[in-house]
Amino acid sequence: MTGLPTPGNLLYAQSGGVTAVINASAAGVIQEARDQPGRIGRVLAARNGVLGVLRETLFDTAGLSAADLARLRATPGGAFGSCRFDLDPLERNPAQYDRLFAVLAAHGVRHFLYNGGNGSMETCRQIQAAADARGYPLTVVGVPKTVDNDIVGADCCPGFGSAAKYLATSVREVGLDLAAMTTDGGRAFVLEVMGRNAGWLAAACALAADHPDAAPHLILLPEVPFDEAAFLARVREVVERVGACAVVVAEGIRGPDGTVLAMQARNQKGYIQLGGAGEVVAERIHRCLGYKVHYALADYLQRSARHLASRTDTAQALAVGKAAVRRAVAGQAGVVGIERVSDAPYRWRTNLLPFAAVANLERRLPAGFIAADGFGVTEAFRTWCRPLIAGEDWPVFRGGLPDYLRLALPLLPPLLPPHEG
Amino acid sequence: MTGLPTPGNLLYAQSGGVTAVINASAAGVIQEARDQPGRIGRVLAARNGVLGVLRETLFDTAGLSAADLARLRATPGGAFGSCRFDLDPLERNPAQYDRLFAVLAAHGVRHFLYNGGNGSMETCRQIQAAADARGYPLTVVGVPKTVDNDIVGADCCPGFGSAAKYLATSVREVGLDLAAMTTDGGRAFVLEVMGRNAGWLAAACALAADHPDAAPHLILLPEVPFDEAAFLARVREVVERVGACAVVVAEGIRGPDGTVLAMQARNQKGYIQLGGAGEVVAERIHRCLGYKVHYALADYLQRSARHLASRTDTAQALAVGKAAVRRAVAGQAGVVGIERVSDAPYRWRTNLLPFAAVANLERRLPAGFIAADGFGVTEAFRTWCRPLIAGEDWPVFRGGLPDYLRLALPLLPPLLPPHEG
Repeated sequence: MTGLPTPGNLLYAQSGGVTAVINASAAGVIQEARDQPGRIGRVLAARNGVLGVLRETLFDTAGLSAADLARLRATPGGAFGSCRFDLDPLERNPAQYDRLFAVLAAHGVRHFLYNGGNGSMETCRQIQAAADARGYPLTVVGVPKTVDNDIVGADCCPGFGSAAKYLATSVREVGLDLAAMTTDGGRAFVLEVMGRNAGWLAAACALAADHPDAAPHLILLPEVPFDEAAFLARVREVVERVGACAVVVAEGIRGPDGTVLAMQARNQKGYIQLGGAGEVVAERIHRCLGYKVHYALADYLQRSARHLASRTDTAQALAVGKAAVRRAVAGQAGVVGIERVSDAPYRWRTNLLPFAAVANLERRLPAGFIAADGFGVTEAFRTWCRPLIAGEDWPVFRGGLPDYLRLALPLLPPLLPPHEG
Repeated sequence: MTGLPTPGNLLYAQSGGVTAVINASAAGVIQEARDQPGRIGRVLAARNGVLGVLRETLFDTAGLSAADLARLRATPGGAFGSCRFDLDPLERNPAQYDRLFAVLAAHGVRHFLYNGGNGSMETCRQIQAAADARGYPLTVVGVPKTVDNDIVGADCCPGFGSAAKYLATSVREVGLDLAAMTTDGGRAFVLEVMGRNAGWLAAACALAADHPDAAPHLILLPEVPFDEAAFLARVREVVERVGACAVVVAEGIRGPDGTVLAMQARNQKGYIQLGGAGEVVAERIHRCLGYKVHYALADYLQRSARHLASRTDTAQALAVGKAAVRRAVAGQAGVVGIERVSDAPYRWRTNLLPFAAVANLERRLPAGFIAADGFGVTEAFRTWCRPLIAGEDWPVFRGGLPDYLRLALPLLPPLLPPHEG
């Protein structure tokens, strides 16, 4: 294809729910690309993912100083803006792809790095296939991120370890609070955590327990159909033994008929975005057992809690960004994954997975990680999970609060007419 | 009174909702008492506050090593157990006081230190008055604690600074997440925070904003009647300017008619402990403005988050414990307070307040701390609040999680027959 500069420019973008460490991947991409001046030209970033490509809202990351990059590495959220937007299939909307490649060509892009989850890896696959079909010299590399840890083929995924560390720490702390407040009568505490259809984050809360009767006492996983009678019997048993029961509820749990519990709550209330499985479970405990119940919904707090990041996680987030750049300049398209080499000592390395092996698939907790009674995890899970929350990586604090970067780059002047639709 | 040992023993107990730093006060009490061997005998602690006195469930803290004390200082929750229990008025239930003083006498207690909030200071007043009336040589000293910061007469209260730091940090982090997720259409995020009838914690979230359009954009305080129409107009205005609106809602906000919003939600659902003001506000935003809304309920997480304690707060918690012991041995009954000497540099010292000036009263945000429009705070509030969240005081982490103390002291053998009622 004529007109593309040599070396080609690299375009980076963020997609899907953001995490505490996705910007560490961005910092890894930018740093590694700067370290390869002969092989990569400019390092651009799109605002709000692939939407920003279509809209030609692009930044030149050359405006970021070394100090900015260091702060970016320790800043939660998606500094360049994320999106929840899927490309249409090529055959249904060829004009969308014409626009996309017009923007890439106008900005001399030969490497596209997309930092997202399962759905974003499908976007990667679509763009690589379209580039190949039209003979546009582009290498697409997926940079993984998700707190849900549900990317198929990877041992773990950047974003998960920090959210897991935050939640396990919170459950340990809440367990001490709950124990102190328990005098007479039963008490329960319910925490709803993220994870969509996979129970990885809920399961990670099990690491909080430092003795057999410590919180969390019960974990409701989306991989196990919610059996209300069996659950309430277990809550009562825990309360009668320990005095109080701390329950972790994955947002995606379903009843025996497959209905998502959260949707039940939502329908009752007549609106869609609010409420959730944890509140349903809290209400059942209170109504059926008469216990005093406290309920917490961590929501965005759990995926943006950079103040308590896992050092393993920040290191892996940085590494997948750097590895993606190396794959791109080598012309190797695919999704960067994290492979476990050994448990003790924990050793890992990055690898490369084909898009088709990852895109739009969901990795759920394997049976070997779920306790026989369905209300907890196995020792095999704990062994797998412990290294992922290991180590602290405190951000710099200033005036009592974390000193995060707020991106102040100007948008590049558009080179093309505005995008319609 | 005959039979009491010299030096007299000290009894410490915890009451009310626990905090991230109440155990630092316990550590301060125990350490200071150990440093006064000629003036204080044994240092006992009651399990579950004044309930544990009545039930004669007592610990001897001599079983705690110096290493235990160091861990206790950095452990959230109430290590000795708390309670929500008020003594009856003396004239209504003299037998309750007979039992209380029988237990104190049996264990040679001449100093009673009660670590709690407004209601617990009334308990202190009642016990001191009863002791004086019956000629029992007891000095009662109140050790303040509350995340709500609503103790009258004190500039601030241990527990508040750490909860404030945790919430302001969380709002800053969530604000970055929310900004990243905002592409088209309006978005809102609602966080419900504690504080009962006082807006101190909600107000502290204002410190998260590091520029004029940063989160939180609006704060709903219990001191300001909730004007739904004015509020929704402001949400819309923020969304149209910034793209998204982050709202902090104090749990105790009330409508113009004085009805607590949380109670409305509770009544609709038919149960009492669950739901809250934040969810009501989130639902109104979604229903009236059509925005996508995320809602978080920090609940116990905010008051047990010792992993992100304020160094000012942990120092003050330790200091009020130590000061209480010094007041007790000097025979000075009352509530230890924290007095601000200067803002910049921030200087403070402990003082002593009469029980009657504190007990059962509530300190709410003064008008000078509330923004003119009622949806935020003034610079005077920020100046007051900033030093209280300053500095970090990380607990020791082990295996990726904070290494907290779990008390393993045996109960003392009871010296009296069991308590009836």
